[in-house]
Amino acid sequence: MSLLTVGSVAFDAIETPFGKTDKIIGGAGTYIALSASFFEKDQKIVSVVGEDFPQEMIDLIASKGVDTTGLQIKKGEKTFFWSGRYHNDMNSRDTLVTELNVLGTFDPVIPDSYQGVDYLLLGNLSPQVQRQVIERLHERPKLIAMDTMNFWMDIAMDDLKQTLALVDVLIINDEEARQLSNEYSLVKASKVIRAMGPKYLIIKKGEHGALLFHEDKVFFAPALPLEDVFDPTGAGDTFAGGFMGYIASTDDSSFENMKRAIIAGSALASYCVEKFGTEQLQNISREDVDKRIEKFVQLANFDMLQTI
Amino acid sequence: MSLLTVGSVAFDAIETPFGKTDKIIGGAGTYIALSASFFEKDQKIVSVVGEDFPQEMIDLIASKGVDTTGLQIKKGEKTFFWSGRYHNDMNSRDTLVTELNVLGTFDPVIPDSYQGVDYLLLGNLSPQVQRQVIERLHERPKLIAMDTMNFWMDIAMDDLKQTLALVDVLIINDEEARQLSNEYSLVKASKVIRAMGPKYLIIKKGEHGALLFHEDKVFFAPALPLEDVFDPTGAGDTFAGGFMGYIASTDDSSFENMKRAIIAGSALASYCVEKFGTEQLQNISREDVDKRIEKFVQLANFDMLQTI
Repeated sequence: MSLLTVGSVAFDAIETPFGKTDKIIGGAGTYIALSASFFEKDQKIVSVVGEDFPQEMIDLIASKGVDTTGLQIKKGEKTFFWSGRYHNDMNSRDTLVTELNVLGTFDPVIPDSYQGVDYLLLGNLSPQVQRQVIERLHERPKLIAMDTMNFWMDIAMDDLKQTLALVDVLIINDEEARQLSNEYSLVKASKVIRAMGPKYLIIKKGEHGALLFHEDKVFFAPALPLEDVFDPTGAGDTFAGGFMGYIASTDDSSFENMKRAIIAGSALASYCVEKFGTEQLQNISREDVDKRIEKFVQLANFDMLQTI
Repeated sequence: MSLLTVGSVAFDAIETPFGKTDKIIGGAGTYIALSASFFEKDQKIVSVVGEDFPQEMIDLIASKGVDTTGLQIKKGEKTFFWSGRYHNDMNSRDTLVTELNVLGTFDPVIPDSYQGVDYLLLGNLSPQVQRQVIERLHERPKLIAMDTMNFWMDIAMDDLKQTLALVDVLIINDEEARQLSNEYSLVKASKVIRAMGPKYLIIKKGEHGALLFHEDKVFFAPALPLEDVFDPTGAGDTFAGGFMGYIASTDDSSFENMKRAIIAGSALASYCVEKFGTEQLQNISREDVDKRIEKFVQLANFDMLQTI
């Protein structure tokens, strides 16, 4: 089935305790598309870059089966740029530079050829842009998932709530879930947030794994314990991309299949953090992903005896 | 099989955002014995209390199948007392009062009737006392597990290392693992710590679950997401007690069975935090425990398709 991703395609510059990069390719849309491509071969992207964005990277994304018709290239303008520095524990970071550039006036135009897409993943963008995408699709996709962040809760909560009412799956981290719900307990937070619209809520807890809430059911996926986390940038988007790529390629939105999709997303995220930026997503093969998924099976699998 | 626990039997006074208690019954040995009793019916305890300790509580512990011959009652002395206040997030606490009392001169005498015990769990006590217990058993138990804490790393690291060299399983939390190994990554920490002696390392991460390391294998057990954590006191000891009670009752120290034992310990810990002190451990039935274990199966269980 086809998957449409709307998300930033951007430049990042990253500092971690292990080193720093020059401007490298980043953006939620990039991580999502690369990650989803391990499962779903029929992808489309809506995004915007400046004329400074390298054609080789667009070609790379296209080579993974991603239709880039909807990737606008703005003449005379510059690509979105973010720069950040991670602290020693890798769990917190300072933003050094944010240059919105082309993203500041992003109008998400949907090419006619994208109409009828089966699955939709809205990467972290303004809730208004996310809503425009939903409204501009003539038919509602089978499943709509979205990411967001505390920034939008701070400055555009009403807008965010309007968009949340339209989606099926919300994918956010624990801190964002607490801010959105005003509840510390993630169980309580999940009820408040699901009352806002999304029937499914995925709460990412970084090195502590991820939770999926739906009706009275909850599923927990561990994160793979790693010797080193080299660069966490894009891990959340990689997770979301792997999740939706798996859902779209299996065309199955059941709770049981969402569990598998979360493991698939977690496996890809565990690769992502091993090198800077998208490097590992460009290096690894589908076979590598399957091997990593098997590690998750070993990590989480247990078989209770019925009687002792 | 029989299980010997060595650990404090004490008074606690606890303050949490939900309320506060007067002096209630606590201590690692108490939590461990009550928790293990859901699985293992042949338990023994070595500990010490003052004459202020209520006979009803000793009777309660004995009624769970725990031989209290080794529980010394010191005439004219007072029981160990700890008082603490939890912060709003429940993840950190201040110690308000620590009165060692009888624990300050604790000499862990092993009754003759305890010799030949099958399994040994050393609750958090001075590493010297823990080592004395091992040395005073004429036959080495099939499996020796121990707990410890940062306090002993601060003031008695050499002693601690001598004791660690004698045990099979170390059960500590993530902060303690980092301090003991001087490594932030828990994967690296687990290697450093297992080189000190314990072939098995369990790292408790509180609301984020627990990890079991052995050789090149790792298992992750989630914590049950709860609406409220009412009082975390004793959750770690309850976990350890459930773990060793399960191991002893099944007489199986294989990695696969340790996974089950960790789930059993996690289930009991998830009950423990629902009320103050040992209240829930006194309230619940074995049937309740089995139901809670089933919740963990639902929480963690997934079945990857071989091909998609």
